[in-house]
Amino acid sequence: MVTDTALRVRIAGVQAALAEERLAGLIVRLPEHLVLLAGYWPMLGRSALVLPASGEPVLIAPEMERESLSRTFVSDIRTFPVWKLGDPPPDEGLARRLRDAVSERHLRGERIGVERSADEELAPTQKLTEPWHPTGPAQAILETLGADLHDVTPLLTRLRARKTPAELERLRVSREIAGFGLRAFSGAVEEGRTEAEVAAEVERAVMARGTGYKGTVHARAEALVFSGAERLNRVSWGLAASTPRRMERGDLVMLELSTVADGYYSDLTRMATAGPATARQEALLAAVAAAQRAAIRAVRPGATGDAVDRAAREVLRAEGLADHFIHITGHGLGFRYHESIPLLYPGAEDVLAEGMVTSVEPGIYAPSFGGIRIEDNVAVTADGAEVLGE
Amino acid sequence: MVTDTALRVRIAGVQAALAEERLAGLIVRLPEHLVLLAGYWPMLGRSALVLPASGEPVLIAPEMERESLSRTFVSDIRTFPVWKLGDPPPDEGLARRLRDAVSERHLRGERIGVERSADEELAPTQKLTEPWHPTGPAQAILETLGADLHDVTPLLTRLRARKTPAELERLRVSREIAGFGLRAFSGAVEEGRTEAEVAAEVERAVMARGTGYKGTVHARAEALVFSGAERLNRVSWGLAASTPRRMERGDLVMLELSTVADGYYSDLTRMATAGPATARQEALLAAVAAAQRAAIRAVRPGATGDAVDRAAREVLRAEGLADHFIHITGHGLGFRYHESIPLLYPGAEDVLAEGMVTSVEPGIYAPSFGGIRIEDNVAVTADGAEVLGE
Repeated sequence: MVTDTALRVRIAGVQAALAEERLAGLIVRLPEHLVLLAGYWPMLGRSALVLPASGEPVLIAPEMERESLSRTFVSDIRTFPVWKLGDPPPDEGLARRLRDAVSERHLRGERIGVERSADEELAPTQKLTEPWHPTGPAQAILETLGADLHDVTPLLTRLRARKTPAELERLRVSREIAGFGLRAFSGAVEEGRTEAEVAAEVERAVMARGTGYKGTVHARAEALVFSGAERLNRVSWGLAASTPRRMERGDLVMLELSTVADGYYSDLTRMATAGPATARQEALLAAVAAAQRAAIRAVRPGATGDAVDRAAREVLRAEGLADHFIHITGHGLGFRYHESIPLLYPGAEDVLAEGMVTSVEPGIYAPSFGGIRIEDNVAVTADGAEVLGE
Repeated sequence: MVTDTALRVRIAGVQAALAEERLAGLIVRLPEHLVLLAGYWPMLGRSALVLPASGEPVLIAPEMERESLSRTFVSDIRTFPVWKLGDPPPDEGLARRLRDAVSERHLRGERIGVERSADEELAPTQKLTEPWHPTGPAQAILETLGADLHDVTPLLTRLRARKTPAELERLRVSREIAGFGLRAFSGAVEEGRTEAEVAAEVERAVMARGTGYKGTVHARAEALVFSGAERLNRVSWGLAASTPRRMERGDLVMLELSTVADGYYSDLTRMATAGPATARQEALLAAVAAAQRAAIRAVRPGATGDAVDRAAREVLRAEGLADHFIHITGHGLGFRYHESIPLLYPGAEDVLAEGMVTSVEPGIYAPSFGGIRIEDNVAVTADGAEVLGE
C-alpha cells in the first residue's frame, strides 16, 4: 500500500482522472513522473511505476537504488539487478517485472496511459552528469506488454500544475535548503573573488547542509553568478557559465540558483553588491523589489497570468524602467526547474488556481547598470499567495 | 573556416567517412556531438551543426550562448534569439537558419546523416539541472528540410572511439581539473566529517579552480563519497547519493568522481582512510593497485578487452580476492562519462586501437572490509598506454 495518508491525495486524484479518461491504468518512466507519483527521485533512470486506476501501484527499480527508495510512499517495490558480472541486461529484468505487474494489476489488453510525448527539456535523474531520458528502448519495452497504449503526458502535466499539501511541504523543504545557498552567496560576494568561486561556495553549502536536512536524501544546486555591468547586461537575462572574472568594488552581482532536493525544485534569483551600493543601484534594486511585491500581491485564485505580469510591469513603468523589463514575469515550477503551467506574461490567459506554484521574477537590463532580477517562488493559496521560504 | 589546424583532423575524418557512406553531409544536435564536431558545449541545447561532406560547417546556436561559443573551432556561427518578449519561438529561428544552411551547402534533396538513434543516457548540456535531449520536436524540424535522412549515430559512435591528438589534449585538461577535486578529497577526509561535506568540497574545488583553467569556460564535477564497510559493501560498486553519515576513525572512504570541462569528461575513483589504515586495509589497497597496474601494462594497440580484464583479475586471483571483483574492468569515455567502445570484461572481443580512451577500474567488495576500487583513465598510444594525468 501507499504508506503516507497525506501523500495518497496525488495518487487518488490521478486515479480519478484515469477513470474519467477510461484508462485502466498508466506506466511512467520519466524521472519527474516518478517523483510526482512515487515521491522517488531515480539515480540511474531505469525505473518504472505501474499505477492501476484502482488498486495499489507497483514501483520497479534497480536494486542498487535502495537508499533513494527510502523516500518513496509506494510500498510494493520490486528490484532488478544491474551492473554486476553475470547480471542479465537491466532492460530484461525491468521488462519481466513490468509484464508481471501489468498482469497482476489486470492491465493486459486494457487501455493504459504511457509517456508517448515528453518535453525535450528533462528533469534529470540524480546522475546529473549522465541523465537518462526514456526514448527508443523504453518505448520498445512498452510495446511488448500487450496493452492498448495512449499518451498520458498531457493529463499529468495538467494535473501536476496544482500541487497537493504534501507536495507543497516538500517544495518548502527544497526552498529551505536553497536558503543555505542564498546565505552562502551573501557571505561570499566580495571584491577580488571570482564568479566561479562564489558559485562553487553556494553549491557547496546546498549539498553539505541540505543532505539529510528534514530527511532529504539528495540535495544539489546549480548556481550561476554574473558580476559587473557588462556581463549583467549581456548574459544575466539568460543562462551562462560563471566565469573567472574577479569582482570589483561597486559591482552589482547576481545569483541564479536552481536547487533540487529529492526531485523537488526551487528557482531563485538574488542580487548583492561588492562593497556598498551606490544610490543609483539602491534605487534600481528598490524598484525591482517593488515590482516583485506588486506582482505577488496580484497572485490569487482566478487571477490571470496577464494580470500578475501587468502588476509588476506597471511599477517599473512608473519608474521609467518598463522598456528594460524584457522577459516574462514568471513560470510554473516544482517537479522541474521550469514548468509550463502557469506562465505570467503580457496577454497570458493562464488562470491561477489554488496549489499552483510560480516564479515571480521581474528583471531589468541596460548597459548603464547591467542587470537586476529578484526571483521567488510563490504558491497560490485559497485566497492569495504564499512566498515559499517566508 | 574551422580555425584550429589540429582540430581539423576530426572534421576531415568525419567528412571522409561521410563520403564513403555516400552521404552529402550531416546535421547533429546532441550535446555530445556538438562537442565532438564543433568543440562547443551547449548551455540550452537548442543548437545544431550542419557539416557537408566537403566544405565548411555551419554552427547554429542561441545568441545568449556567445561565451560558450568562444571555444568552438567553427567560424561560421549563426545565432538566433530566445527568451526575450517578442522573440519568435526558438525552434522557428533555428529551423529557418537550418533551412538556409542546408540550401547554401547544397544539401537539399541529398542523402544526409541525422541522429535517428541516440543512447537513452545523455551527455547533458551545461544546464545540468534541466538538460535537453533531441526527441520529437527536434526530429520534426528535420523532416521540413527536404533532405533524404539516414541515421548517422552508429557511424559517429564508431569514429569518436578513437580520439584525435587535439581531443586527447582536452581530455588531459579535464583530467588536470579533476585533480583539483582529488586533492580536495585527500585533504577533506577526516573523522567526524560527513560524506556529503567531503563530496561538496570536491565539487567546489573543481568548479572554483577549474573555471578558466587553460581556457576552460565551464568546469563541473559530480562527486559521490561512500564511507565505512557497511555502505562501501552495499552501494559503492554502483552509484548512490553521498549521505550525512559521519566518518569514523579507521573508515575506508571512496570517492567516485565525474568531471566535465567544456564537454570533455573524466571518470576517476580514489580511496582514503579516516586516520591511519590498518595492515589489512593496506594489503587490500595494495592488491587492487597492483591489479590496476597489471591491467594498464596490458593496454596496447591490438590487445582485447578480455586480455586487459584478465590481467587485473589474475592479480586478484593470486591474492584470493577474485570472487570479490564483481564488475567489469573498464569502459570507454571522453565525450561522455561512459562510452560503449571499448569495454573490458571477461570474454570481451573489443580490440584496442591508438587513440581510444578507457577507464581501468578493478574493484573488490565484501562485508568484512566494504569496497575498494581504484580508477584511472588510460589512452591507448602507438605502442602502449598513457595514464591521463601522469
